[in-house]
Order: sequence, then structure tokens, then C-alpha cells
Amino acid sequence: MGEIITPRTLSGFMELLPKDQVIFDKIRNTLEHIYSNYGFYPLDTPILEDSKILLAKAGGETEKQIYRFNKGDSDLTMRFDLTVPLAKYVAKNYSDLVFPFRRYQIGKVYRGERAQKGRFREFYQADIDIIGDGELNILNDAEIPSIIYTLFNGLGIDNFVIRINNRKVLNGLFEMNGLKDNAADVMRIIDKIDKIGVENVTEELVDMGISKDVVDTVLSVLTYKGSNSEVAEMLSKYSGKNEVFDAGVNELVQVIDYIGKFGVPEDYFKIDLTIARGLDYYTGTVYETFIKDHPEYGSVCSGGRYDNLAEYYTKKSLPGVGISIGLTRLFYVLMENEFLNRSFENPVEVLVIPFTEDVSVAVDTATKLRNADISTQIYLEEGKFKKKLTYGNKLSIPFCILLGEDEIAAGKVSLKDMNEGTQETLELSEAIEKIISARQSRSAERFVNM
Amino acid sequence: MGEIITPRTLSGFMELLPKDQVIFDKIRNTLEHIYSNYGFYPLDTPILEDSKILLAKAGGETEKQIYRFNKGDSDLTMRFDLTVPLAKYVAKNYSDLVFPFRRYQIGKVYRGERAQKGRFREFYQADIDIIGDGELNILNDAEIPSIIYTLFNGLGIDNFVIRINNRKVLNGLFEMNGLKDNAADVMRIIDKIDKIGVENVTEELVDMGISKDVVDTVLSVLTYKGSNSEVAEMLSKYSGKNEVFDAGVNELVQVIDYIGKFGVPEDYFKIDLTIARGLDYYTGTVYETFIKDHPEYGSVCSGGRYDNLAEYYTKKSLPGVGISIGLTRLFYVLMENEFLNRSFENPVEVLVIPFTEDVSVAVDTATKLRNADISTQIYLEEGKFKKKLTYGNKLSIPFCILLGEDEIAAGKVSLKDMNEGTQETLELSEAIEKIISARQSRSAERFVNM
Repeated sequence: MGEIITPRTLSGFMELLPKDQVIFDKIRNTLEHIYSNYGFYPLDTPILEDSKILLAKAGGETEKQIYRFNKGDSDLTMRFDLTVPLAKYVAKNYSDLVFPFRRYQIGKVYRGERAQKGRFREFYQADIDIIGDGELNILNDAEIPSIIYTLFNGLGIDNFVIRINNRKVLNGLFEMNGLKDNAADVMRIIDKIDKIGVENVTEELVDMGISKDVVDTVLSVLTYKGSNSEVAEMLSKYSGKNEVFDAGVNELVQVIDYIGKFGVPEDYFKIDLTIARGLDYYTGTVYETFIKDHPEYGSVCSGGRYDNLAEYYTKKSLPGVGISIGLTRLFYVLMENEFLNRSFENPVEVLVIPFTEDVSVAVDTATKLRNADISTQIYLEEGKFKKKLTYGNKLSIPFCILLGEDEIAAGKVSLKDMNEGTQETLELSEAIEKIISARQSRSAERFVNM
Repeated sequence: MGEIITPRTLSGFMELLPKDQVIFDKIRNTLEHIYSNYGFYPLDTPILEDSKILLAKAGGETEKQIYRFNKGDSDLTMRFDLTVPLAKYVAKNYSDLVFPFRRYQIGKVYRGERAQKGRFREFYQADIDIIGDGELNILNDAEIPSIIYTLFNGLGIDNFVIRINNRKVLNGLFEMNGLKDNAADVMRIIDKIDKIGVENVTEELVDMGISKDVVDTVLSVLTYKGSNSEVAEMLSKYSGKNEVFDAGVNELVQVIDYIGKFGVPEDYFKIDLTIARGLDYYTGTVYETFIKDHPEYGSVCSGGRYDNLAEYYTKKSLPGVGISIGLTRLFYVLMENEFLNRSFENPVEVLVIPFTEDVSVAVDTATKLRNADISTQIYLEEGKFKKKLTYGNKLSIPFCILLGEDEIAAGKVSLKDMNEGTQETLELSEAIEKIISARQSRSAERFVNM
């Protein structure tokens, strides 16, 4: 034998122990189930793409972070999000898709950022998008927050708020105040309002050469506090001055109105005119989602409306609306805050333990349990009574079925409830009933019904 | 706008249209469900690893195929299988795992092979392994074929056979015949017997300098035709001559005996003494699985017993047994042969179509359907009656709920069965019942209950 290489995992790459992996998978399954429930179709695209495709749009910041390399004649890049591959997919398969095209995709993406707490180089994103062919009704923008609401509820999180804005409101407001030419810079500064406060934002804007009066006017609109209808009423006072602004307010009011009709309680969605989303990609509605007690995590689910999904790959106009969840990061946030501390449920429901040399009856019992759709493991190793039971305990398997000579002679099984510590000798059919009924009462406590 | 880049996907990388993706995901879910039912825990490891870790063992052939590159100071490799990452994981987390450790992993792996029909550069593997700490009972080797049997049945495939051998039988037989020193070369040649036939194998072995008599003796044992018990009986005639051989025959007989007890009918598993598996990794039981009418696809599910999972990362002895399915390739084989042609079932069950300007009732109806766990889409776009219905038709959504002024006034819905072409006006609760009952009769036809 050669030298031993110390086993390690690259920093910034998540790798979980089985119990945590079970919880992660449950969250992932919850998302898939809810996305599917809302009529989205699954999509899976390659992790590697031609660099020319993936970097068609990317700017300097992206270029620095990506994993890009050559193999033979190919210049390859690992995907850094799920949006660019979607754009390529829709443009490539345009004639085979039915529009509006609704897809979800949950997959790993790669960014070679400096590794730090809560930052990952390999992480899951969970995206949904609705893509129209030429046009897409504004009411789609109102459906998205109801999906966010259902998702977070499904994950057992109650203290969150979806903040909503419309980029046209911002653009119109800037135009109205003579700030059209430096709208992008103004937006970038306003986007920091949560982090640095109104005063610092005011100062930075004045430093840009904008008059204090204009800055005050703009910020007084954007930071207006009130209920959704109060904000809408405040905005309506500025109507008739700028077409873009009026279109934005009209969209925002419609979206807010319909979000309620989609079943989201008023407490869970709020107009926030300071939200711009950094990317120049969004053109209308924008969303961010915050966990109320934890603003330090930033937005855990963001997205919005865009006019052109795939302008680099097709001349077709493909407007859409979508959101993205950084699933790996959300998982860490939830684990760190013990949102999920009661949610581990062992997927393995029974450990069948034979205490005789011939394990035929144990094998047969396990087969019958599995046929009844009960997840079952047989303990096939040799050892003392205690060692075998300890195995079930260490794995937190809720039930053991013990098969000694007495049980086999009587044609029965001993069912041990590992949580209660109780044990009874039963017909196998009775044991199956007990296991299924215990599962049903456990699922009532689960964070979502999957 | 700049130049349009023609959207393309790299060759050798699978990317499916929505209908096929739904089928692929169903197969993947079936595997996950069955693996879990047999008491395996999920695992997810990074796609990128330190090259020193991933290539600890790899030989020349692997090195040529891998995707390896530098980023900053890091020498990185994309995983080329799920076994090496498992070995690293078990060695790294040894003290946190409970042994025997049973894990399944379904994930993408990367091999830069020359692209050709049915060969992929990015493909899914679906692996299970049972890892012992120091020892692992031989009966675990008998459980694996019952999982293969359940899997293929679950996928609706009936005409397959699991071929089983034991490397100790081969090694012992070679030792007995003075071929110990060139056992690896002999094995490599015998492994080709399916492709090139007995005569060519004989010739190649004689060319190696082995006497014709010895070659004939060895091949007469290995190519002996008979039922499992007949082969076992034939082997027993050679017992007492070599310890390795005797141990191998003893294991093989036990495994074959217990596979039956695990519920696999005799027709589905067969001793085949010519199977060696190319890798020097396997040390006992080996499996291959063939689709009977399609030997040209080779083995679609292979694996076996190994003495040391992680010898490059730990001095602990970690014996195990496992199998791997090349899921992407299996999917193509199944699609190509129309095994799955009846298996597309739209995950979206209802399209709600409003025919009024105010879509509140449609939104409310969709929310109620979704709350009843019925996957629902609302058609929110404007357009004529026919355009809206055509959308549902193109997507093969089984039901449409039509909501015009009459339905809304009556507080009812019109339910259109898109397959039957029938339509009736009902209470929403009645419509929900019909949709669920149609789902249940459809699932009776599905290739597996998930």
C-alpha cells in the first residue's frame, strides 16, 4: 500500500452527514412538489457549457468568479446560474416549446468566490420562470408571490415578508426629476439604503451632483411608510406626469391587488419602493424576500420581470417573470436558526433483526414490509443482542422487528418501538398497521406534506 | 443589440424537452423511492474535488478522460464516478457514520470520451453501496440482486437477467491450474468471451503461452451450461483442491440460495462464471445485468463486492458491496426501445381558463385546486376561446376548467376532459373528485407507484 492521502472536501463545497442530507432532500422535495403543484415543468441542463454561450452577456465580475477551462479544442465554463442556460434552452428549442413556458430547475451552480461563512462555491439554486412568446400578462407577476408564500409556509417559516416594487416606477420617477441619464447610478446607490441608511444615500446622491431638493423629493417618495394601499394612493398623486411612471404604478397596483386574490395574507407582502435589484436585467416587477428576525441574511428569494430572456441567442422577444432561491444558503440559514430542528424524520422505518443463524424468516419479513411500502433494513451482521439493537438506536430508526426462535416458532414478530421503549409480540400484519399508523401521526408534525 | 450567438448544447451532454424530462425524472424518482425502501440513505457529494483526492488511484485510462483544470492555486477535477467520492466521504466521516453504512447517490459524472451514439460526457450514475467496518456479512451480497430485480420491475422491464459470479472462484481456478501469476491477464481475456467467442479466447490464451490442455480445462469449467444448482454441483466437484476456490464456491452458493429467499424468481438470476468485471477493485461477488433481447447494450447495472473501499484515504478496512446504474444511458436505451412510450403522464393535471376580464374567480379556483394537491395552471393570457383550449391540448393537460360568465353566475365550473372530449358543469368539489379519481385510474397504468 502507498501513502495515505488525508481525505478532505474543498472549502466552499457543501457535503452533509446523512441526517442533514435527509433534511436537505426533504426541503428540495418540498420545493419540487410545490413548483409542480403550481404547474411548472422540470428542466435539467448541463453543468458544463461552451464558454461562448455562457459568457455571451457576462461582465467583468462574473468573468472573475467563473470556473472556465480548456479541454482539447473546447473552451468550457461551469454554469454560474440557471438563467443563462434557460435562455439558451428556450432559444434553442423555441419551436418545440409551448408558450407561456413554465419551468422549474433545481441544480448546482459554480462561483469561485472567496470562501467565507455562508458563502459557497458550489451551491444549489432553485428557480422558476414563466416565459411568454412576444408578450406575457402582468397577472403572472402576481402569481409568483403566492408561490413564494406557499413555499416558505411549506418549509415551516412564518416570519417572512415579500417586498415588491416595479422598476418602471423608479425609472419614471427618475425621469420626472431629470435623473434619466444617471438612473443606473442613482439606482445602485438607492439599492444600498437598507445597509447604509437614508442619510448616507442622500449624501452620495448629492456628491453625484444632484440637487438636494431633487434628492429629498425622490427619497421622500421612495421611503414613504404605509400600508400597500396607502403607498399606492401616495403614488397616484404623481400620475399624469410621466408615461413610464404611470405604467409602473398601474402594474404595481394590479399586481398587489391580485397577490391578495392569490391567497397571500396582507402581512406577507409589502410594497418597498427602494428595492431595485442590482441587475439591469429586470424591467418591471421585482421581488425580494426577507426573514423578519434576520435581515442580516439579506433576501433569500428574489426575482422579477424581464423583457428579453434570450436576446443574445435569438431575435424573438421572450418576456418573462421568475424567482431564484439560493437553496444551499437557505438551508444553512434554516439549520443555523433551528427552524428545522424537529424535522429529521428517518426515511428508514423498520430494522428487522434476526437472532437465528438462518435468516430466511427475517429476509421474508423484510420483503413483505417493503412490499407494503415500508422502508426496511435487515441487520445481517453477526453479534450480540445489544450490538444489534444499538445499531438501530444510533440510526434513530423508529421501529425494530425482533425475530428469535420463539417468534419464528409462533409465526409472529416482536415489534419494538424505539422511542417509547415498548415491545409487543404481534402478527406481522398487525405490526405493519402499527408502523403505518405511527408514520401518519409523525407526518402530521412534519414541516410539509410531501 | 449585438450579434446573435447560435444557441447550442455541447455534444455528449443530455438536455431533454419537457415531456422527456418528466419521464426521466419519474425514473429517477422510482430509483430513489426503491433505494430508500431498501433502507439506503441519500448522499450528495461535490462535483468538483481536489485532483490529488480524486486521482489517488486512477490509472492512465481515467487520466485521459477526465476534466481537470487549475483555478488559482487549486488543481481541480470533475468527478468521473461516484465511488471515489464515496471512499473519500466514508474515510473523512468515519467516526460520524454508523456501520454498516448504506447510501444511495444519484448524480452527474464527467468523462471526456469521444462522443458517439449512446455515449455521454456528462451522465447520471445511480449507485448504492453497503459499507462495513472491518467486516460485512456475505448475505448483503444476496440482497443487492433483489434490489436490481425490484428496480427493473418498477421500471416496467421484464426481460432481464442478473448474471452473478465470484472472483474467488476465478482466482482459485487459476491458482489450481498454475495461472496465478498471470491471473489478471487471463481474466481480461476471458472477460471478452461474450464479444469474441470461446475460440478466439482460447487462441489468445494459448498465445500467452498457456498450454492448450489447461486452457480447455479452465474454459470447460467457466462455460459450463446449466441451471444455478447444476453449475453449483459442477463446481463442488473441484472442491478440496484450493482454499480460495472453496471459499468462492461457498460464497457463491450462499448468495444464490439467499437471492431466491429475497424474492427473486429463478429466471432472473443466473450464475455466469465468465463474468469478471474489468476492474481489479472487486474481490468476491460480481454482478452484471442484461436486457435479454438487447445484449448489444452490454450490462446496464453492474457491481460487486470489494475488500477495501478507501485504502487510499484510511488504514481502516472498509469492505463493501454495491452496484452502479448508468442512468442516462439506461434512459436512452429504454426510450429507444419504447419501453416507456406509454409512460408520459403530465404532472400538470388541470388548466383553469378564465373567459372574463376579471380573473378573480379563476385565481380562487386554482388556489382551491392546488390546496387539494392538484397540480394546476391558470391560463392568464388574453385570446380567443380556441387559442386558450389549444394551449391545454398542446401541453396534453388532461383536464381544463372553463370559467365564463355563466359558470361564475351559477357558482359552478365547466370541467372538460381533454382525452374524452366531454364537458360538464359541476360544483368545484365534484370536479375535484373527478380529477382525483381520473388520476387514480391513470396511476394504475403507470410503470411504478411512486
